[in-house]
Amino acid sequence: MKPTLARLGETGLLDLLTRRWNYDRRVLTGVGDDCAVLRGQGTYLLFKTDAVVEGVHFTSKTPAHLIGRKALARALSDIAAMGGRPLAALVTIGLPPNEPVARLRGIYRGLEKIARELKVNLVGGETTRARGLFLSIALLGECRGHHPVLRSTARAGDLLYVTGRLGATQARRHLTFTPRLAEGEWLARHHIASSMMDLSDGLGADLPRLARASRLSFRVDPKALPRARGATVEAAWNDGEDYELLFTVSPSRAKTLKKKWPFATPLHCIGEMRPFREGAGRAGSAHGFDHFKQR
Amino acid sequence: MKPTLARLGETGLLDLLTRRWNYDRRVLTGVGDDCAVLRGQGTYLLFKTDAVVEGVHFTSKTPAHLIGRKALARALSDIAAMGGRPLAALVTIGLPPNEPVARLRGIYRGLEKIARELKVNLVGGETTRARGLFLSIALLGECRGHHPVLRSTARAGDLLYVTGRLGATQARRHLTFTPRLAEGEWLARHHIASSMMDLSDGLGADLPRLARASRLSFRVDPKALPRARGATVEAAWNDGEDYELLFTVSPSRAKTLKKKWPFATPLHCIGEMRPFREGAGRAGSAHGFDHFKQR
Repeated sequence: MKPTLARLGETGLLDLLTRRWNYDRRVLTGVGDDCAVLRGQGTYLLFKTDAVVEGVHFTSKTPAHLIGRKALARALSDIAAMGGRPLAALVTIGLPPNEPVARLRGIYRGLEKIARELKVNLVGGETTRARGLFLSIALLGECRGHHPVLRSTARAGDLLYVTGRLGATQARRHLTFTPRLAEGEWLARHHIASSMMDLSDGLGADLPRLARASRLSFRVDPKALPRARGATVEAAWNDGEDYELLFTVSPSRAKTLKKKWPFATPLHCIGEMRPFREGAGRAGSAHGFDHFKQR
Repeated sequence: MKPTLARLGETGLLDLLTRRWNYDRRVLTGVGDDCAVLRGQGTYLLFKTDAVVEGVHFTSKTPAHLIGRKALARALSDIAAMGGRPLAALVTIGLPPNEPVARLRGIYRGLEKIARELKVNLVGGETTRARGLFLSIALLGECRGHHPVLRSTARAGDLLYVTGRLGATQARRHLTFTPRLAEGEWLARHHIASSMMDLSDGLGADLPRLARASRLSFRVDPKALPRARGATVEAAWNDGEDYELLFTVSPSRAKTLKKKWPFATPLHCIGEMRPFREGAGRAGSAHGFDHFKQR
């Protein structure tokens, strides 16, 4: 039986396809982090694409402006996860020719509104015919005057934090969330976060990725998980699309974090990073949402 | 009857949707040129996305590696059209879950090969489930030490040039062409081209765009059109997917161009730019390929 995507899963597929890639010296990080990072003159450029597809990330019933909002917000969340600031976005839309223009206008209105709110330049659009509606966002951001925060730089003994509350997939939050740009940039600029990522596939899927990138294991206290209204511990662990920040902090910086955190956004310590041990940090119901995995 | 995409056409749609966009001072050019241009430190950043879709830009019979090649080459052609050099690309692939992995591997092999040949860093990939196969490429490039060549800066009296030969759609060239990166960068670096774009929708559709951006009209000598083997004048004018460079040169720089052109790539003067006159420069069978227009 030939391998198909459904059997390999999304992560397995990307590992397989990008294993041999190598880069020149301009590239600080390529595949495997929230954004690719390129060295610029006195700056780091952050580069990201993200696509949303009808039937996967939204439905035919989703209000059009929220489709636009979500598409851009997801990519912005990845810029936030590296402590960056967004610069400019390009929008590719694929759609059936009989799509009503009103829906497109709605999508663009949603894009324009969040771009204005979060100071992103929309600098280009492309439309192409396609069988189903999709939006693909390309986003350029930067870290000026400070280093981007990677996934791979956590250390054993670092404390694990999340912003906000988890397990809110039910509540339409996946369409209306605000990416944690200010929080992410603050954590990077003040050298608080030793590693960081955003939660898009669920803590149970994303935390193992951060641990693997840093070659560590982890311990999470289920009782410490901040839960959204009505969410069980399982939902907080497994639900995707939280778009909160997950980050690690050395014990010595944790005091500064507690004292100086200037945001109303909730902040919770949920566990710690441990030295790598085969099979550790994977117990429990540690699966998240994998686009291609058959359930 | 409500407007649908099929009735509005791709260009009309984008005009409609992006009319109100405005940018901060970091943005030199947004919508309406081959790439968006951002001011960097001692450099101009070029930013572009381009998507190819099964059933529109390739078929289920197209060899997989040529799908990957074409997707990246198209975006590179836009970097060439501004005189830039590519830096890094991100690849988004949407596909049905039952797609065989071998096809994906083929697509990636094609991407990797042309990336290696033309020195582009592939820095990230994303896959998502979708109803039909599509690839969306995000590309970052730069002009270091010289200004990017825009569409909007042609002047009346400038001569019109194209590289290569036109009307080759039939010959699978749209899958195998090499973007004119070296030629484009040379024309920009030596201040030869006063305006430039690449030919993707056909000369008859693209030249009016350059003229409109520069607020000029044009005159083309049909006998001067360099035709691909077997192509009629009509094909040279109307066929899309030539991926050659179209550019203007002031009469005083045209001598330098003729004397110094260091490439084997054919170079032909096909006409000239004229002062703007309503309705001029639109005669003949001046329609190209428009994704949404019903024929």
